[in-house]
Amino acid sequence: MNIIDIISKKRDGKELSEEEINYFITEYTNNRIEDYQAAALIMAIYIKGMNYRETKDLTMAMANSGDILDLSKLGSNVVDKHSTGGVGDKVTLILAPLIASLGIPVAKMSGRGLGFTGGTADKIESIPGYNTEVSEKQFIENVEKIGISLITQTLNLAPADKKIYALRDTIACTESIPLIASSIMSKKIASGANKIVLDVTCGYGAFMKNRKQAEELSKTMIEIGKLAGRETVCIVTDMNEPLGYAVGNNLEVIEAIEFLKGDMPSDLKEVVIELGAYMIKLAGKGDNIEENKQKLLENIKNGKAYDRFIELVKNQGGDISYIEDTEKFEKAPIIKEVISNKEGNIQEINAKTIGEISCALGAGRQTKTDKIDLSVGIILNKKVGDYVKIGDIVATVYANDQEKANKAEEEILNTYKIGKEKEDKQTILEIIE
Amino acid sequence: MNIIDIISKKRDGKELSEEEINYFITEYTNNRIEDYQAAALIMAIYIKGMNYRETKDLTMAMANSGDILDLSKLGSNVVDKHSTGGVGDKVTLILAPLIASLGIPVAKMSGRGLGFTGGTADKIESIPGYNTEVSEKQFIENVEKIGISLITQTLNLAPADKKIYALRDTIACTESIPLIASSIMSKKIASGANKIVLDVTCGYGAFMKNRKQAEELSKTMIEIGKLAGRETVCIVTDMNEPLGYAVGNNLEVIEAIEFLKGDMPSDLKEVVIELGAYMIKLAGKGDNIEENKQKLLENIKNGKAYDRFIELVKNQGGDISYIEDTEKFEKAPIIKEVISNKEGNIQEINAKTIGEISCALGAGRQTKTDKIDLSVGIILNKKVGDYVKIGDIVATVYANDQEKANKAEEEILNTYKIGKEKEDKQTILEIIE
Repeated sequence: MNIIDIISKKRDGKELSEEEINYFITEYTNNRIEDYQAAALIMAIYIKGMNYRETKDLTMAMANSGDILDLSKLGSNVVDKHSTGGVGDKVTLILAPLIASLGIPVAKMSGRGLGFTGGTADKIESIPGYNTEVSEKQFIENVEKIGISLITQTLNLAPADKKIYALRDTIACTESIPLIASSIMSKKIASGANKIVLDVTCGYGAFMKNRKQAEELSKTMIEIGKLAGRETVCIVTDMNEPLGYAVGNNLEVIEAIEFLKGDMPSDLKEVVIELGAYMIKLAGKGDNIEENKQKLLENIKNGKAYDRFIELVKNQGGDISYIEDTEKFEKAPIIKEVISNKEGNIQEINAKTIGEISCALGAGRQTKTDKIDLSVGIILNKKVGDYVKIGDIVATVYANDQEKANKAEEEILNTYKIGKEKEDKQTILEIIE
Repeated sequence: MNIIDIISKKRDGKELSEEEINYFITEYTNNRIEDYQAAALIMAIYIKGMNYRETKDLTMAMANSGDILDLSKLGSNVVDKHSTGGVGDKVTLILAPLIASLGIPVAKMSGRGLGFTGGTADKIESIPGYNTEVSEKQFIENVEKIGISLITQTLNLAPADKKIYALRDTIACTESIPLIASSIMSKKIASGANKIVLDVTCGYGAFMKNRKQAEELSKTMIEIGKLAGRETVCIVTDMNEPLGYAVGNNLEVIEAIEFLKGDMPSDLKEVVIELGAYMIKLAGKGDNIEENKQKLLENIKNGKAYDRFIELVKNQGGDISYIEDTEKFEKAPIIKEVISNKEGNIQEINAKTIGEISCALGAGRQTKTDKIDLSVGIILNKKVGDYVKIGDIVATVYANDQEKANKAEEEILNTYKIGKEKEDKQTILEIIE
C-alpha cells in the first residue's frame, strides 16, 4: 500500500477501503506521510466526497490514533453532548449538573476557545480555584463519587484529527461535510461516549451557514454513529444571533448560574431542555421527550440542578461563594452602554460579528497561546424580535481599554439590524435521529 | 491577495485571474507559499481543470520565474523542437545539424535522462571531448559562428516548473493536460524560442497513452502558443515501440551518425523528415511541406547535414574521429543475442519496458545523481511488422554484467508479442497546427 495510489483513487472519485484509510491516518499521525501528500488527499476528499462507510472508517481511524478514554466503569450507556460551535453557548455549564441531578453520570471533557467561538473549559475557569486539569483516574473517580466531572482535554485524544484540522485550515478545506463530521465524531468516540446528542448549530455564528448543510452534516454524523455503534441524535438549532444574553467568560458563567437559579432566557432554555430531554432518552432513563422536559424543568425549580453545580465546583476546588453571590466575579473596569439610534424591531444580530467583537475585547484567542481576559465581553440587552426606541440600551460592553470599548460600541450598533417587520424567531429548527 | 482564497476559487471550479496565477508562481518559487498549499491547489487544478487562458498564464508565469534566454541576435524566427518523451529518441541529434545545414540557426538546449527515457545531452556526451556545458554567451557565439550549438541546460530556466514538477510526482498529479502543457511550453519559452515544433509522442513509451490524450495535449499547447505569441505545430507520433533500432547512449549516437551518412531506419526517417519540414516552414524558409522534405533528404544525400554535424562536434571540442569511424565508440564487455522461440509477425514491443530494461542495464538514471554507463543498451534487430522464425535474433543486449544481461534477455523476450496477424504500423499519426 502506498499513499500515491490512495491519492490517485480518491482523485478519480473512487471509494477508499478501510485498510487504505487506516494506512493514511496511521502513517500521517506518525509523520511518515508528508503534509503536502495529506493536503492533496484532503483536497481530493473535499471535491470528490466520501460515502458514509468511508466517513465512518475515517472517524474510527482518527479516534484510534491516540488515547481512548475508557468510561465503562460508569455503565453501558454513557451519554455525551457536543455543540458544533457558536457564540454565547453556555449550554454545557447548565446541562451537565442538570443531567447529573437526574442520576445520569456526566463525564464531560470540554475544549478551549479559538477564534470567535468561546470554549467551556475557559468559561468554567472563571470560577476561582476551579481545576479543569485532572488526571483520567481522578476524572472517573469524581464521576463515581458525585455523578459529575467537567474538565478540559488532558489526554492525547484523536491526534490525527488535530493534525488534519490544522492542515485543512491552511488549504481551504474546512467546509467539507465528511471532514467536519469525522472530526467531531472521532473526538466524541475517543472521549468514551457511546450515546451522543449533538447540537448542530446553523447560521451566521456557526460552521453550517444554512439548514440544508446542517441537515446533511446531521445525517452524516447519525450514519457514522450507526455504523460505529454509537447512537446519535442531532438537534439543529439557530445560531444566527448569540445564544442567551451574555457573551464572554465571566458573563456567561454568571448567566449559567442565574439559569440554574431559575432565571432562564427563552432561547437558551429551549436548547438546554431539548438537548437534555434527548440525553435522558439516550441514557435509557425515559422515552417520552415531553415527560423528560418536565423532569428537567422540575430539577431547575426545586434547586437540585443548582445544588449539583455547587457540588461539582466544590469537588473540583472552586470557590462556591462566587456561585452563591455572582456579584463577586471580577467586573471589567470599563462598562459602556450601546444606545439605539433607531426605532423598530430588531431583525438581526450577527452572532459571528458579536463573537469577533468579544474576541477583540480580549475574551477569546486569535492563536492557541494567547492569554484571555475573563472579565470582558458583551451583554445583549435586546435580542432579535425585541422592539426598541431611540435612546434604548441595546447592549452593554465590558472592556479593559477605552479605545477597544469605543470600537466595540460602534461595531455592535452596526450589527443590530432594526426595521419595520417583526422577526419570528425559531430556536429549535429540527430533530434528526 | 492570499493563497487560501486562490485555492478556494479553483476548488470550486472557478477561473483564476492572471494576477492570481502570477501571485501563486512568484510566491511559491520564493518559498513564501508552503508545499502543502501548492499541493492542494495543484490537486484542485488536476480535478477542476484550467481553460486555455489560465494555462497560458501559468505557462508565462513559470517561464518568467527564472532566466529567459535572449536569442534575438539570431533573428526573429528562432525555431525549436521538443519531444514529449520516448525511448530510442535520437531525433534531435540528427535534426539539429540537418536543419542548420539549410541555413536555419539552431540554438538547442537539451535535457538529461531520468527514468526510462534518455536525454539528448547524455547521448551527445558519448562523443569523447564534447562539451555540453558552455556559457550563454559562448552558446550564442557558437550559433553565430557556425549556425549551430547543442548544449545542456546550464541556466536557471523555469525554476517554478522544476518545483511543481517534482511536487506533482509525489501527489499523483502528473497526468494532467494543463499541467503537462504548461510545463513543456514554459521551458521552451524560457529557452528563447518563438516558433516551436513539438513531437507529441503517444503510446506505451510516452506520457500520453492514447490518441485522444495526445490530441488534447497538442491542442492545448497550440492554444498556449497562440495566446503567448509563439507559433506552435504538433506532430503526433507513435511511441508504442522504440524509435529506430538503438536504445542506449553510444548505440543511439552511432545510429544518428549512420543516419546522417544515409542509413535511415524507416520510422526514424519519417519522424525526422516530418518535424524538419515543419521547422523549415516555421522558420519562414518554405511553406510547401513536400518541397521541404525533399530539401532535407537532399542534404542527407549530399553530405551537408553530416558535414554540419562534424563542424558542431569539432566546435564543441569533441573528437571527430569517432564520427568518422563509429567502431571507435566503447563497446559494452558483454554482448548477448536474444533469440526468438516463436514464429510469426511481431505485433508489439513495449517501448516503456525496453526503456526500463535499458535503464536497468545502466544506460539511464533512477535518481538525478546516478552515474550512467554510456556503452550499455539494446539493439532491436527486429521491429513491429517484421516476420521472425524460431532461432532468429530479435535483439542484442549490450551489458556490463552477466546477471543483468541474462535478466534483460528474458525480459526482452517477454515484451516481444509474436502472433499470426501482421501489424500495420503507422509512425506519423497526425499533424495539428
